[in-house]
Amino acid sequence: MDRRAVVLLSGGIDSSTLLFLAKKRLADEVLGLSIDYGQRHKRELEAAEQVAKAAGVSWHALRLASKDLCTAFGNPALLDGAQPIPHGNYADVSMRSTVVPNRNMFLLSLAGAFAISLGAGFVCYAAHGGDHPIYADCRPGFIRGMEAAFKELDVTLWTPFMTMDKRQIVKLGKELAVPYDLTWSCYKGYAVHCGKCGTCVERKEAFELAGLGDPTIYEA
Amino acid sequence: MDRRAVVLLSGGIDSSTLLFLAKKRLADEVLGLSIDYGQRHKRELEAAEQVAKAAGVSWHALRLASKDLCTAFGNPALLDGAQPIPHGNYADVSMRSTVVPNRNMFLLSLAGAFAISLGAGFVCYAAHGGDHPIYADCRPGFIRGMEAAFKELDVTLWTPFMTMDKRQIVKLGKELAVPYDLTWSCYKGYAVHCGKCGTCVERKEAFELAGLGDPTIYEA
Repeated sequence: MDRRAVVLLSGGIDSSTLLFLAKKRLADEVLGLSIDYGQRHKRELEAAEQVAKAAGVSWHALRLASKDLCTAFGNPALLDGAQPIPHGNYADVSMRSTVVPNRNMFLLSLAGAFAISLGAGFVCYAAHGGDHPIYADCRPGFIRGMEAAFKELDVTLWTPFMTMDKRQIVKLGKELAVPYDLTWSCYKGYAVHCGKCGTCVERKEAFELAGLGDPTIYEA
Repeated sequence: MDRRAVVLLSGGIDSSTLLFLAKKRLADEVLGLSIDYGQRHKRELEAAEQVAKAAGVSWHALRLASKDLCTAFGNPALLDGAQPIPHGNYADVSMRSTVVPNRNMFLLSLAGAFAISLGAGFVCYAAHGGDHPIYADCRPGFIRGMEAAFKELDVTLWTPFMTMDKRQIVKLGKELAVPYDLTWSCYKGYAVHCGKCGTCVERKEAFELAGLGDPTIYEA
């Protein structure tokens, strides 16, 4: 294992910032890994590729979407062909339908497999301190457990954003010159951000709270 | 969450015994879950179905094999289309080529997703104390980490075989009347067990050490 790192890259604000941070502070060689697990917003994979290109690192996509994978996750709203994406804030009960149960353990298992196959010593995961209580797989207890499991595999799980909130991440990203105009957050996956779903609402807030201009084009 | 349990069922000796044990001692309702991740020995899926039927529990298969999944795992010998399965004992260096890196974290993530989708409170995993040092994802440190991560998801990871070896498992299985003639171990996946690969060698030893008759038909 050496100082190579696999970054789980969704193409959103957090993981894009993490990619730039890993390149600057962690590893000699960084690879962005994106996974098509059947998400409705496949537009994020395109964003991830562009962000990796802008960072000057290699990028790999695993296309794993299938009917059976959708079944394993219980057909939640976030996946293709299921119920529509609700509007509003993450705090709303309706947003629970966007939870893909245990998705992040699934993504981490693949990033781990990929890292071991490549002989990379790090998997980087952008869960952050502001992540929402409905997402159990972003909580500190979950992260600590996964860290311990990864340690047994001789892979270090790097989660530097666990002590930061979204506002701090955007501020850091501006210092790192992350091209936020290339990133994608919206769960709907239209041509532009809808501006209404939970992740769009959060995206707007992050730029506002950080006191920075929002480069995003939202639906009128 | 209630007393329903999802058992990761490969169709081999250990997980088949675990299925019968979970039904007797753990849960009101047990579901056997088998996953096609591209293993060469797909014959084990058929065995798993037969074992679940014999136990009188429901069975579900997730068919997830794909080129990209094989890529994520680095194309090891155990997967379709890769190098041939080596003969001999697990201790041999050549057996390392049968390691599918981080496979069990991947399988556990899916069992966890499935359990949460169903509202089941338990995931049962047959890693045992005799598991081989080359399989990092069967070691106590790995299991403890995964247990902690699962706890955050309100799912209990049940691993009663961690303090047992294969001989003890087979003895327990005989008490539970596990139909070992239906189980499948061989990595090659021919019509009958090859009798030469690491898992066949171990299977033979387990019955011998337990002082029990081996119901397996091996290749002449």
